[in-house]
Amino acid sequence: MRIVVIGSGNVATHLAQGLFHKGVTIDAIISRKMENAEALGSLVEADAFDNMKKYANWGKEDLVLIAVKDNAIDEVMSSGLLKHSDVVHTSGSYDSKGMRNYCHAYGAFYPFQTFRKTAAVDLSLVPFFLEMSSEKGLRKIEELACLLSNSVHNLNSSERKKLHLSGVFLNNFIYFILDKTKNLCVEHGISQDLLKPLLQQTIKFALDYPENLQTGPAKRGDVETMKGHIEVLSSNPNLAEIYKTLSYLIYNENHDDKIEL
Amino acid sequence: MRIVVIGSGNVATHLAQGLFHKGVTIDAIISRKMENAEALGSLVEADAFDNMKKYANWGKEDLVLIAVKDNAIDEVMSSGLLKHSDVVHTSGSYDSKGMRNYCHAYGAFYPFQTFRKTAAVDLSLVPFFLEMSSEKGLRKIEELACLLSNSVHNLNSSERKKLHLSGVFLNNFIYFILDKTKNLCVEHGISQDLLKPLLQQTIKFALDYPENLQTGPAKRGDVETMKGHIEVLSSNPNLAEIYKTLSYLIYNENHDDKIEL
Repeated sequence: MRIVVIGSGNVATHLAQGLFHKGVTIDAIISRKMENAEALGSLVEADAFDNMKKYANWGKEDLVLIAVKDNAIDEVMSSGLLKHSDVVHTSGSYDSKGMRNYCHAYGAFYPFQTFRKTAAVDLSLVPFFLEMSSEKGLRKIEELACLLSNSVHNLNSSERKKLHLSGVFLNNFIYFILDKTKNLCVEHGISQDLLKPLLQQTIKFALDYPENLQTGPAKRGDVETMKGHIEVLSSNPNLAEIYKTLSYLIYNENHDDKIEL
Repeated sequence: MRIVVIGSGNVATHLAQGLFHKGVTIDAIISRKMENAEALGSLVEADAFDNMKKYANWGKEDLVLIAVKDNAIDEVMSSGLLKHSDVVHTSGSYDSKGMRNYCHAYGAFYPFQTFRKTAAVDLSLVPFFLEMSSEKGLRKIEELACLLSNSVHNLNSSERKKLHLSGVFLNNFIYFILDKTKNLCVEHGISQDLLKPLLQQTIKFALDYPENLQTGPAKRGDVETMKGHIEVLSSNPNLAEIYKTLSYLIYNENHDDKIEL
């Protein structure tokens, strides 16, 4: 199979390399910055272009993979160059119908994972969520996804948006809390490595057990401990606000009265 | 070494069993409910009592390990039975000085982990934080902790309280978010197993990389996506509130203006 990749960011880099290493021909990498296009192109033995117009073989590839920021997808589509192509985007929240008038078949090739260029990811464990406007196109992208991953699923745009929202909680919000908590520990001379066993077990309990295993001062209504914690956070307003919001939510779920922290 | 364990809950169960399997003699398990004392006692070949007064050998043990709820520690200590004993509690937030007048030496034996009785935990990976009022006592509990774990550290009560606060973020709050997000996914027919690779990578990025890798709609100021997400959460006020609080915090850290969600 021959594919063209538009984009050279974190997602484009991991998908292009993953497919290349499974024997897929990457015909071209197209990215606004020539330097980025060339860097990724050289890794996957692909021609590099800084403008879609410079690629001469539109319609001859098997698939165009668009891995650019959500708000740049429409611009890529409206170039008018993809009329005869099967095209997928890699976004969680972009509604694939926006591509409808600009290509032969359209859909989504969404890896539910966070990527950075230089960090290794085992793609075989990454769940891929696929959507395609044609049956034939769907079989094609299923074949590609199954080369990469053991976890391939179909999901329409509306459901994918909800999955993406879950991803915001799992990734953006938990990242924010962890980053701030890590800094709090580092301030107190505690290595972040010491946080991992507790985190791993927390995730295991949250995902593997159906019953609610919530514990902690807010659950048991230990106002004194909560006030002490907020005092420790007096120089850390972000963590203090998260502390209060979540403590109130947990308290309210488990008690009938109201508290003031 | 011979130890007496007061308590029969999640922490007591894992520590007593861990020590027993390393060859430590558990002389007695003491717990308010005889049934619980006997259940744990039978697992570690220890006598079981439902009242501290029924144990006849106070002062002859090498260590008393108190693994009860924070607000029950003082009651245990003020029994007056531990005058000649070296005693440790297992709490993150209890100030060990509260034990000062009631025993020979006192301190903390704090495993930084979340436990439930029936879920296996590899104690060798669990960081233990120790504090003791006497050098001799400290060497004794270090010896015990090193039997269980490869990660043994000294930490005073004031610093342990800050570590415990970090644990509230890592465990209580992340548990709450994950539990709610899991329910959201299950509602939409998405298996919670599919969340794990993203979570694992998120934790890796948050803890292993010093630079800020925050991403997402709040970071890039994508108000339209955020409003769409809040709409999806209209029937889920807890997640909606977490969404707004964290989105505001992330937005404010990365932008100079204010937004209204």
